[in-house]
Amino acid sequence: MGMTVVEKILARAAGREAVKAGDVLEPKVDLAMSHENAALVINQFEAIHEGTGIEVRPWDPSKIAIIFDHRVPAESPKTATNQKKIRGFVAKHGIAKFHDIRGDVGGICHQVLPEYGYVRPGFVVVGTDSHTTSHGALGAFSFGVGATEMASAWTLGYAVNIEVPPTIKVVVNGEFPPMVGPKDLILHLIGVLTAQGANFRVLEYHGETIRKMSTSGRLAVCNMSVEAGATSGIVPADAETLRYLREEAGVTDAISPVTPDADAVYERVVEIDVSALSPQIACPHTVDNVKPIDQVAGKRIHQIVIGSCTNGRLDDLAVAAGILKGHKVAEGTRMLVFPASGRIFGQALDRGYIHEFMRAGAVVMNSGCGPCLGVHEGALGDDEVALSTTNRNFKGRMGNPKSEVYLCSPAVAAASAITGVITDPRKA
Amino acid sequence: MGMTVVEKILARAAGREAVKAGDVLEPKVDLAMSHENAALVINQFEAIHEGTGIEVRPWDPSKIAIIFDHRVPAESPKTATNQKKIRGFVAKHGIAKFHDIRGDVGGICHQVLPEYGYVRPGFVVVGTDSHTTSHGALGAFSFGVGATEMASAWTLGYAVNIEVPPTIKVVVNGEFPPMVGPKDLILHLIGVLTAQGANFRVLEYHGETIRKMSTSGRLAVCNMSVEAGATSGIVPADAETLRYLREEAGVTDAISPVTPDADAVYERVVEIDVSALSPQIACPHTVDNVKPIDQVAGKRIHQIVIGSCTNGRLDDLAVAAGILKGHKVAEGTRMLVFPASGRIFGQALDRGYIHEFMRAGAVVMNSGCGPCLGVHEGALGDDEVALSTTNRNFKGRMGNPKSEVYLCSPAVAAASAITGVITDPRKA
Repeated sequence: MGMTVVEKILARAAGREAVKAGDVLEPKVDLAMSHENAALVINQFEAIHEGTGIEVRPWDPSKIAIIFDHRVPAESPKTATNQKKIRGFVAKHGIAKFHDIRGDVGGICHQVLPEYGYVRPGFVVVGTDSHTTSHGALGAFSFGVGATEMASAWTLGYAVNIEVPPTIKVVVNGEFPPMVGPKDLILHLIGVLTAQGANFRVLEYHGETIRKMSTSGRLAVCNMSVEAGATSGIVPADAETLRYLREEAGVTDAISPVTPDADAVYERVVEIDVSALSPQIACPHTVDNVKPIDQVAGKRIHQIVIGSCTNGRLDDLAVAAGILKGHKVAEGTRMLVFPASGRIFGQALDRGYIHEFMRAGAVVMNSGCGPCLGVHEGALGDDEVALSTTNRNFKGRMGNPKSEVYLCSPAVAAASAITGVITDPRKA
Repeated sequence: MGMTVVEKILARAAGREAVKAGDVLEPKVDLAMSHENAALVINQFEAIHEGTGIEVRPWDPSKIAIIFDHRVPAESPKTATNQKKIRGFVAKHGIAKFHDIRGDVGGICHQVLPEYGYVRPGFVVVGTDSHTTSHGALGAFSFGVGATEMASAWTLGYAVNIEVPPTIKVVVNGEFPPMVGPKDLILHLIGVLTAQGANFRVLEYHGETIRKMSTSGRLAVCNMSVEAGATSGIVPADAETLRYLREEAGVTDAISPVTPDADAVYERVVEIDVSALSPQIACPHTVDNVKPIDQVAGKRIHQIVIGSCTNGRLDDLAVAAGILKGHKVAEGTRMLVFPASGRIFGQALDRGYIHEFMRAGAVVMNSGCGPCLGVHEGALGDDEVALSTTNRNFKGRMGNPKSEVYLCSPAVAAASAITGVITDPRKA
């Protein structure tokens, strides 16, 4: 009986010939990622020492990655002091995959990991962030864990009590119409599956649309797979994966793609044809409240947000800058742009996108999670409405439970910035 | 008996032939500036209606300026809701000199006012911000007031109970040595005068050094005059003032410079020769704790900050970018850069300064007061030390009473960013 790609990855990581959904394993971890919540992990990690008297050290510091992104630069002494504590831990244990608050090597964890080649096909990646699902875009089995599980992984080098999840095969075919893309696909899929529809399951992506999709688009799709409840999204490694790792991430050592068996067992197959897909909007206050744009066009918007680990990459900024060129952000609407990493910010500078955003009246912010969380910048006022390329629209997500957040693609966000209302970029 | 420049401005504004220090006047206001604290002013303004039953409207909406800068983009629902309320007031009363959170026309109030030509020589300017002293750089009498005084000015069009302040004449001569400039001059002067030394007084700047100084440098000098306790700093309008207003602020209408009489009466004359001045550092926790750099060089720095209404202008960024070019921000030191306005950000983009900052590893942030206040970004951790081109180093100024802030010029900040310790840019 054949295996899905995640079953094959887990079998290898657990030293077994074969595994199937429902098996409980202790797979070796290839990469363990945290952001500022590394401070919690450190607490748990050091509690092991206090509890046992044994001096604990990370099993393999080269497999730990820590990236500051959630509150950068620190919004409070508490955060700044936590970051300082983490720097001390990083120095003590020689953790090289550390990305401090910097314009050159900093950024959002889910962007820094792929762009520095830290994630490879076949890897088991754990991260103390729910959008760790992103890294399935590179053919890894990548999922979110809590601080205690992470402290355990830091100590043991493997993840304990991992039940092999069933896999839903998602087959995507057809060519995207103009102004429609990966974000519309994943919003549509979440609408179809519902927010709990893929709970404890893997979404394994296939089809010609995925094959032709850039790694950037795949990152957006896998990033938001968690919004359907999935443990992970994954695109089995292919030629594009190798191209990205070689050309963009600068990887020079061996890469071992893992692909599913032809006779793999899937719990379910979902087929999507994108050739007639329209821009999709996730309406307040759940990500699965997805509607085609014509049902919400004209809605007045006070804040447009372009950025985040979902849609803050160079191609996202290119689309938005292209639409904004020669236009102004509407009066009464503010627009915030935050590239997903320092490297992307630099590329966007070189290509003139940052100039276009500034000229149009958008506020360009430093890389980080910033307005997506709304905990220290980009909060909404009472009764205000945001349209955002980020990944969550829960009540209060942008800091204010009395506001509304709509989610969309960069094309929709840019077209709507010009008009101040939700606008179909195909008609702009 | 002759008059100082502020006496002449106040005489004209109060409709008198002559005034002298100690006279109490009700001068007409030419410009009334607020930032987000306009929300407090609006409360006071509307209380007049509630108290009297009379429908109040601003005496002249064209003379009111409101600029969002202190918490942009809003860090909390409360701030965002206040900003929303202010937008409503602005629309209701047709306040055209309104600068929302935008990358094109936004920025810090003390930069936006000069660059849009809102301030003219001879103006009486009131602002609900202590650094309103900045606008003396354009030959205006410009000073900070509270929200209640501002509501009164909005209603009446004049400032009540203004006692004409005595004037201290500051005569600055000599040529700045390389890597020494206006920020070092004003820090030195504050050290000489002490933090209360110019309380309730005007600092009127003269001498060849001032005459040759750009408006940008004069803005830094007048901005920080308040740190010696001064009600206002002022540079009587001259050829450079006219050049700035015509060439940079785009002013085309008549400009009426006001200059002091030759026989004006000054309370005191302070003479400074800058030709042997070294880079100056204001040490924790008062701005007048000023030392020449050699007394503090080598001090370990965790956060470098370049920006603010004091030193976030194009020439400041040019100096810093020039020093950083080809270098990296030291490991363990983070560097934050925030241009004083969207226009400056755009100019810095065009000249490649933003690229240099990012390449060096600095984090470039959107324009606003940001890290200077430390209330929502750029806060320090416990026991951390910042070196900053901003204007205040009071305990807790960057958000954390357990940290230290040193103040310096952009040249010192940039040189120190490379080494991670306070570094004399003349020796870098």
